[in-house]
Amino acid sequence: MSNATAIPHVVPAEITLVPDNTLITATAEEGRQLAVKMARLIIKLTQPDEEKRKQLREVYGNDAMMLIAVGQVVAAEFATIAAANNYWRR
Amino acid sequence: MSNATAIPHVVPAEITLVPDNTLITATAEEGRQLAVKMARLIIKLTQPDEEKRKQLREVYGNDAMMLIAVGQVVAAEFATIAAANNYWRR
Amino acid sequence: MSNATAIPHVVPAEITLVPDNTLITATAEEGRQLAVKMARLIIKLTQPDEEKRKQLREVYGNDAMMLIAVGQVVAAEFATIAAANNYWRR
Amino acid sequence: MSNATAIPHVVPAEITLVPDNTLITATAEEGRQLAVKMARLIIKLTQPDEEKRKQLREVYGNDAMMLIAVGQVVAAEFATIAAANNYWRR
Amino acid sequence: MSNATAIPHVVPAEITLVPDNTLITATAEEGRQLAVKMARLIIKLTQPDEEKRKQLREVYGNDAMMLIAVGQVVAAEFATIAAANNYWRR
Amino acid sequence: MSNATAIPHVVPAEITLVPDNTLITATAEEGRQLAVKMARLIIKLTQPDEEKRKQLREVYGNDAMMLIAVGQVVAAEFATIAAANNYWRR
Repeated sequence: MSNATAIPHVVPAEITLVPDNTLITATAEEGRQLAVKMARLIIKLTQPDEEKRKQLREVYGNDAMMLIAVGQVVAAEFATIAAANNYWRR
Repeated sequence: MSNATAIPHVVPAEITLVPDNTLITATAEEGRQLAVKMARLIIKLTQPDEEKRKQLREVYGNDAMMLIAVGQVVAAEFATIAAANNYWRR
Repeated sequence: MSNATAIPHVVPAEITLVPDNTLITATAEEGRQLAVKMARLIIKLTQPDEEKRKQLREVYGNDAMMLIAVGQVVAAEFATIAAANNYWRR
Repeated sequence: MSNATAIPHVVPAEITLVPDNTLITATAEEGRQLAVKMARLIIKLTQPDEEKRKQLREVYGNDAMMLIAVGQVVAAEFATIAAANNYWRR
Repeated sequence: MSNATAIPHVVPAEITLVPDNTLITATAEEGRQLAVKMARLIIKLTQPDEEKRKQLREVYGNDAMMLIAVGQVVAAEFATIAAANNYWRR
Repeated sequence: MSNATAIPHVVPAEITLVPDNTLITATAEEGRQLAVKMARLIIKLTQPDEEKRKQLREVYGNDAMMLIAVGQVVAAEFATIAAANNYWRR
């Protein structure tokens, strides 16, 4: 088992952590989708092995506590994105 | 068991993550309800299978620690919505 | 055991999530009490069965980790309420 | 075992949740002490039985994860108090 | 085993919770170190026994989940300190 | 097993906690990478032994709940960095 499966010491250049390199989105809905993507990309960075991530998704998709914890992470990412967009106020 | 039950790599267009695509609500009560809905929609996105979600709700509805964790997620979502609405100050 | 015990898909109209529909309170003490009430109301929404909530309170009232987690939820709710009230500065 | 040991539905008037009913303190040190006190008062509200709290303190004082979680709660309370005091900037 | 090992009801005067009684630091690096110190001081307050703390550090220093949780506490403390210092913007 | 593996009482001068001593980055992507680095540096500070960290990374890289928790820490660090940079608004 290789230690390459954990957070790499040097962030690989090929993984983009912020899609399009901006927190600004046209709508709240798009901001929410960005929050989900950014949360997923950290998981991908921490566990780059696609097959293992697939197995782990099976685990947290079927575990009530983990589903709630996923919600907590998305809420935290979304708070930042929403503030960046002045909450999409008109 | 299919990996389709976990966070999809492409957010399905048919799931709306922010109802009405806005964080702005008329009242604090409506803002709180929005927080609950947004928290639930992330769970739905992560576990799209209705039958499994029903089983998992049974689990967290009857587990003290999970009930508290649900409260933590709603509090986080509500913080963002409340800020978006300038706390519904008159 | 019915799945009606978990987060309902439609928020029942009869449960008020924000007492008096406002985050504004006269004092910090009242703001703190509101934080406690709002945290409790999410638990009530998620587990509407009074008898089960009584049992679950027994559990978290006697579990050190859960007591700490209750404190975390109240702190999060209070942060929002305190900001709404400009921290009750005079 | 009575359900009186969990969060009461009516907050007992005799428990003060915010000492001196203010978040304003003269110094950062006093603000930090207030954060600790406010965190403790929620535990007291949730578990009013002094003898049980004593036992539970024994538990979390000797559990590494719970000590860290106590730190998380105090950090959250302190964030609010520090903002209320404009971070005690001179 | 004495209950003196848990959060004392009266904060002992001899434990300083905020070094130098200020959140203001010259640099981001110093602010980060302050966040670590403040997190540690809450652990010290909650478990004043040096020998026990040493044992507990052994535990969380070798537990992946606890290491992550330590990171969460430091992040929370740092958020407050960074805001206090206007993020050390020049 | 030495207790030197846990949070040292004196932060060793040789560990930099904030790379380049600034939270300011040119882009959101770089800000996100900084959040990851700062989270990792707290783990390094808490567990300075490289070999043990390698083993622990194996653990959390293959544990669904820990991967989610890593995401929570990064989200918290990123919130601070994003605010410091005014969300890289143009």
